[in-house]
Amino acid sequence: MSDVIFLPESILEVQTLAALRDAGANEETAGAATRAMLHASRLGIDSHGVRLAAHYAKVLRGGRVNPNPAMKTHRTAAGAATLDADDGLGHAAAYAAMELACSMAKEAGVAAVGVVRSSHYGAAGAYALAGAEAGMIAVSMSNTDAIVALHGGAERFHGTNPMAIGAPVPNQKPWLLDMATSSIPLNRVFLYEALGKTLPEGVAADQSGHPTRDPANVEMLMPLGGMDFGFKGAGLAGLVTLLSAVLTGSTLDHLMIRMAETDDFETPRRMGHFCLAIDPDRFAGRALFDEAITRYLSDLRASAAREGQSVMAPGDREWAVEAERARTGIPVDRKTAKFLGLAE
Amino acid sequence: MSDVIFLPESILEVQTLAALRDAGANEETAGAATRAMLHASRLGIDSHGVRLAAHYAKVLRGGRVNPNPAMKTHRTAAGAATLDADDGLGHAAAYAAMELACSMAKEAGVAAVGVVRSSHYGAAGAYALAGAEAGMIAVSMSNTDAIVALHGGAERFHGTNPMAIGAPVPNQKPWLLDMATSSIPLNRVFLYEALGKTLPEGVAADQSGHPTRDPANVEMLMPLGGMDFGFKGAGLAGLVTLLSAVLTGSTLDHLMIRMAETDDFETPRRMGHFCLAIDPDRFAGRALFDEAITRYLSDLRASAAREGQSVMAPGDREWAVEAERARTGIPVDRKTAKFLGLAE
Repeated sequence: MSDVIFLPESILEVQTLAALRDAGANEETAGAATRAMLHASRLGIDSHGVRLAAHYAKVLRGGRVNPNPAMKTHRTAAGAATLDADDGLGHAAAYAAMELACSMAKEAGVAAVGVVRSSHYGAAGAYALAGAEAGMIAVSMSNTDAIVALHGGAERFHGTNPMAIGAPVPNQKPWLLDMATSSIPLNRVFLYEALGKTLPEGVAADQSGHPTRDPANVEMLMPLGGMDFGFKGAGLAGLVTLLSAVLTGSTLDHLMIRMAETDDFETPRRMGHFCLAIDPDRFAGRALFDEAITRYLSDLRASAAREGQSVMAPGDREWAVEAERARTGIPVDRKTAKFLGLAE
Repeated sequence: MSDVIFLPESILEVQTLAALRDAGANEETAGAATRAMLHASRLGIDSHGVRLAAHYAKVLRGGRVNPNPAMKTHRTAAGAATLDADDGLGHAAAYAAMELACSMAKEAGVAAVGVVRSSHYGAAGAYALAGAEAGMIAVSMSNTDAIVALHGGAERFHGTNPMAIGAPVPNQKPWLLDMATSSIPLNRVFLYEALGKTLPEGVAADQSGHPTRDPANVEMLMPLGGMDFGFKGAGLAGLVTLLSAVLTGSTLDHLMIRMAETDDFETPRRMGHFCLAIDPDRFAGRALFDEAITRYLSDLRASAAREGQSVMAPGDREWAVEAERARTGIPVDRKTAKFLGLAE
């Protein structure tokens, strides 16, 4: 018996949508969440793929998340707005915020939207990609519940606090960086535990904050940069908190109800997100931008690699996975396939 | 004989200004460069402090840098502008760009300025600090000549590409993150070589891109994140290149004339910088922002540290150095002190 089933994207999409509708989600909520999960599943970010459908159904049913939110935007200046997500799922809010930021940036050159009263929004790259597809350099970030220690710290203080940036490339897939500000996600720890593997050095710590390579002893993650340079990762995590929570008036990482390790699936978590769009038309102009990013990426991909290695631009690995999965289907764990009515 | 002399800031300031004027710099150029170097010297970023005065005098005299630039700004939208630095030193251009971004952000909520035809601008944090002191969340970045390998790469492709972010904190020094997207600066390698010390793991590589801990074998730096997670640091370096060079129409890192390892001190380097200002007034509002950042920092500083360690917010180490140096004076290497007429 295999642990994973390969399923065509189209079928996964239909069943994920149905599962969210079934849990009460309105069309916009279900559509946006499905779009974001399929983005992740297609590109190989399986931790944020359709695996999360069951979790979202649970919080829709539990009351943590409003299945029928009335989102409200408030434009405060030519290049600034807030979006109140009315305690809905984060995906619809984050796509709407990015769309608004892009349309404001068309006019103002640069624009940002702060999202409040939101919830988990999945893979940050989904929204940065949407912005890049609209021709913008686009940034999306969200703080999350605390699991990462400060540099030298001995408690969970920041979330894994992802930041994603996308940039349009003519006749190619966008440049797309989607990264947590910790070295690894918590799910990687669970995976290593299941496989009986030892963690890389400087990525996780035990309950007194001492680094550990034993997945079973992990109480918190360490920030990107490891034992010596973790102050950089912690600073970047703080930047995500500043823009997503402090700027918008949302919940700080360490005060947030946990996503999963909790019995409370009723209380809204009041998460914040931040997005920014920059219109290349208003700087060197589109023609020069197109030429420069094409040259940059072609030089990057042609540059020398270390023996046995290869060099890639952000997104290249993901676009390769996407192409492969278009052929093979998307691997889905049996539990999720069952939840989606696609396995016994 | 000591290698370092402690000198009062006021005297250093006068002599640095005089040295730049002496090399032909006009008042704005000399003033801004001195302000930025003193920022770095005060906060302990000695690689970018008054040590650079001799280098700037050399490039002012050599012709690489225009001592009397006529900077031109061009506002392209409510929140976007370009600044042509006319081949002057980067400091005056970067301060002017940040000032413009802040005043546009007052109106548009968010604003960005792309700087073109510029040169080395010293410590990125100087400009982020200026923006934070104007009440904004402020970002400054610049690409630099290539010295950092890609993840898995075997040649110099990106610069150390610093990014700095500042945020205002009521009644306190700003939150201030100023970081290279490599783990360490090249100067650290030279320092370790001089001291006969071994480098940390995963920060530098030899000429075939293989990691080395021997400073004498270092041909290139490795991106933040080390052997396992360097794709994150390389992605961040790429972000700096995209915004500073690709967006503005400036020189790519790997095509840039080297700052120092070259005989060419005549040709302008056509560097680009990028700055962004976000006005907290246009999101949750100033009162909520002030309250939230105060709470965030107080909880951060009170959070548990690992035995023998302490936890700090970005900037805390630098503010402590600043306070200490206000008492002790600023340590200056003898060669620089001599250049400034402050030692035999």
